[in-house]
Amino acid sequence: MPGELLSSPLIEIAQALRDKRVTAQELVEAAIGRHERFGERLNAYSLWSPEQARVVAKAADAAFAAGVAVGPLQGLPVSIKDLFAASGYPCFAGSSRRLPSDPWERDGPLVAKLRRQLGVIMGKTHMVEFAFGGTGHNSHWGAPYNPWDSRSHRAPGGSSSGAGLSLLEGSALLAFGSDTAGSVRIPASMTGNVGLKVTLGRWSTEGVVPLSTTFDTPGLLARSVSDVAYGFATLDSAGIDPVGFITRAAARDLTGIRIGVGDPFLWRDCDAGIVETVQEAVNELVQAGAIAHNFTLSEAEAAYAVFLEGGLSAIELRSFLDQELPDWLGQLDPVIAPAVRNAEALSARDYLARIARLRALARSAGPRLDAVDLIVAPTLCLTPPLMSDVADADSHLRVNRRIVRNTVAINYLGLCALTMPVGCDRAGMPVGLQLIAPAGAEERLVAIGLAAERVLGTAADRLGTPPLLS
Amino acid sequence: MPGELLSSPLIEIAQALRDKRVTAQELVEAAIGRHERFGERLNAYSLWSPEQARVVAKAADAAFAAGVAVGPLQGLPVSIKDLFAASGYPCFAGSSRRLPSDPWERDGPLVAKLRRQLGVIMGKTHMVEFAFGGTGHNSHWGAPYNPWDSRSHRAPGGSSSGAGLSLLEGSALLAFGSDTAGSVRIPASMTGNVGLKVTLGRWSTEGVVPLSTTFDTPGLLARSVSDVAYGFATLDSAGIDPVGFITRAAARDLTGIRIGVGDPFLWRDCDAGIVETVQEAVNELVQAGAIAHNFTLSEAEAAYAVFLEGGLSAIELRSFLDQELPDWLGQLDPVIAPAVRNAEALSARDYLARIARLRALARSAGPRLDAVDLIVAPTLCLTPPLMSDVADADSHLRVNRRIVRNTVAINYLGLCALTMPVGCDRAGMPVGLQLIAPAGAEERLVAIGLAAERVLGTAADRLGTPPLLS
Repeated sequence: MPGELLSSPLIEIAQALRDKRVTAQELVEAAIGRHERFGERLNAYSLWSPEQARVVAKAADAAFAAGVAVGPLQGLPVSIKDLFAASGYPCFAGSSRRLPSDPWERDGPLVAKLRRQLGVIMGKTHMVEFAFGGTGHNSHWGAPYNPWDSRSHRAPGGSSSGAGLSLLEGSALLAFGSDTAGSVRIPASMTGNVGLKVTLGRWSTEGVVPLSTTFDTPGLLARSVSDVAYGFATLDSAGIDPVGFITRAAARDLTGIRIGVGDPFLWRDCDAGIVETVQEAVNELVQAGAIAHNFTLSEAEAAYAVFLEGGLSAIELRSFLDQELPDWLGQLDPVIAPAVRNAEALSARDYLARIARLRALARSAGPRLDAVDLIVAPTLCLTPPLMSDVADADSHLRVNRRIVRNTVAINYLGLCALTMPVGCDRAGMPVGLQLIAPAGAEERLVAIGLAAERVLGTAADRLGTPPLLS
Repeated sequence: MPGELLSSPLIEIAQALRDKRVTAQELVEAAIGRHERFGERLNAYSLWSPEQARVVAKAADAAFAAGVAVGPLQGLPVSIKDLFAASGYPCFAGSSRRLPSDPWERDGPLVAKLRRQLGVIMGKTHMVEFAFGGTGHNSHWGAPYNPWDSRSHRAPGGSSSGAGLSLLEGSALLAFGSDTAGSVRIPASMTGNVGLKVTLGRWSTEGVVPLSTTFDTPGLLARSVSDVAYGFATLDSAGIDPVGFITRAAARDLTGIRIGVGDPFLWRDCDAGIVETVQEAVNELVQAGAIAHNFTLSEAEAAYAVFLEGGLSAIELRSFLDQELPDWLGQLDPVIAPAVRNAEALSARDYLARIARLRALARSAGPRLDAVDLIVAPTLCLTPPLMSDVADADSHLRVNRRIVRNTVAINYLGLCALTMPVGCDRAGMPVGLQLIAPAGAEERLVAIGLAAERVLGTAADRLGTPPLLS
């Protein structure tokens, strides 16, 4: 019974814990059982820590037994990407060496929030080294497996490459990730999960190993919009009650919701089956009452051009390494090392010009978004690539540019966004529908996402089970 | 009688307005009369706008007559540095050309707050071109006169070079300035006024022509700590009632207040009479109950070293010009042009390294400040230089390095600070006592400043009248 319950929405599992229909320890044992069954196939975790999880589950149960609810995440299994500093958990951030324990084994605000609620950390998930890339490739640790292709090793997405898989295998019900250019939405989309990228500055990046001090944002992956909504409300400092939030949203439908579609940049040059699948989902939303407006987010392409010029992450990562981990540079993953090294040629003037251009684009885009409630677009323009096609620096760079095309512009324009799985492409791989909202409009974004999920169904309804896990 | 009232503390003038013992129009006419008498000697304003002031004063009186108090600044004459965008006021920011009206003639949040309260803008004060320098030199507009030396043209301080003089001549009772490396405290100290530099981020820099997007802060100059306290409480978003704030502070004395003194960097190599004058003021504070602790802020010298390497302002100003005013570069004041041009040689890596070093220094300094309530030091280590000694780029650069020595480190370490006049140096020029407090501790800083002012007296008590105005 705990194993079955594991497939229920978080809001129901949390209620079952409170109703004592299940204990946190049973739930966590079920999660551990799932990992024991599927873990080797997927390689989601860089650090799997069942013993620490059991101790916290026991504490969560003891609190429940005492009639004490310390928070909505109490007793729920959660995975954290290995760039979240957490006391008692070595931090590698996908690199070949353990980072200094001060400060990288000291809880940041988001992890502290999770732990104060007696949320159960199951382990730390794999990631691209220092989050610099979207495929999932990692020469030090190997790349996790994407179970939607049982024959070939396809990209699980990155940089939060293990996060989606921890959800798929069932060892975590919520996965902490981070998103600088798409690193939450990309693995969520490639693995058939939901991913939420919050507005820059909404959630503290303290205690998160930095890739780009300018654009890093923590984020969440979950199996459904409902679960993401639960996690978002729980972790957000706006103090939203997750149950109330989801219940209120359930009373709303899509009638009259204005969705901006057809942006020529975000919808063009997609691999076979992607546009069709996303368009079909949009049609279903329109049949359910949403109103489609043609919408061009012309700033998106201009923002992407800044990425193609080199963006900000390479030089900002380089600066972090210079300051904090100077001897790391020589051991960087050969697939990312050239970009990080070459960044030293960038002048401060060009660096600041990039930032200024992006600020101007964000200022320009912001007000125009008021014409609609959301923009929708494919999350990715490509089928998850074969890992063998991204094994050297040049091909990695080329493919990575396509991977982040539809996500990085959203970050650069200061917006927030959510991806939800809506079907499969011609290769049978998951396709994500990206919902894009103005800065700070997470409540609206997630509420509309919930309404959309009631129309479209979850991944379980719409995509079934990944072949490698069936 | 309005003329005499003009010399009273703001809190009393505001009360007189409310009691209808004086009208805003009488007050503003008196202020205009002061400018007509002294304006030519001082050259405080780049834009003097008595007609607009009269219209606002009339509106302030009409509101008073209707029994409506729209805010504590209602009817009070205020000057604004010419880098504050204000609707209806051309903005030059000390340059040779009028900046584009969009956005530079659109009220930012601080100016909007002033105007919503029917505060009376008397005009825009002179400044160093784009706020890049501390002497007050401006090849386009000429430098304002410092009336504490009636024989020679000594520096009024910069970059808010006209702000202090607008207070001295009596045409403004509060002066908006900005402080990136000391640009509020330097002119305040050199002209015998009080200056408040708030913590980075406390007050919005929207609508303020940027020098350094990393370190710009708006700030206030006034004739006394009491007036600065009034302005601070009025403009701060913490929603402090100025009368209550000043009244409560008046009930406190200095007993047990721990002041950190004797930092070897901030107190060394000062021109004749400065250390003695500041030390004498400190002795008076100690006699009044404060406890002096030896305190070394070792991060200050390391932060100053970053300034000596080139800091951040030159490249950040360069970037602003590149983006917004590309054809301005050729017309820059020859005294500042070389630094702004040479900044293009800076690499992004070195730029980010400077930021990272300063962040690390700020993190290190912050907690150590808890050992005292305030640090005290001379605001400046030098006598205001003769303008003839800073007329070329090389000597300007050399002198400017000394000018900002004791102020820029405070900005770089993320602290807040206040300068108050405590006497004169060997050359007969005003000497400022700098009070330095942790990030966000403005209320404490200003409250202790008020207590110190009750012990030490105001500039009027302690320094008398500037020779050029007597």
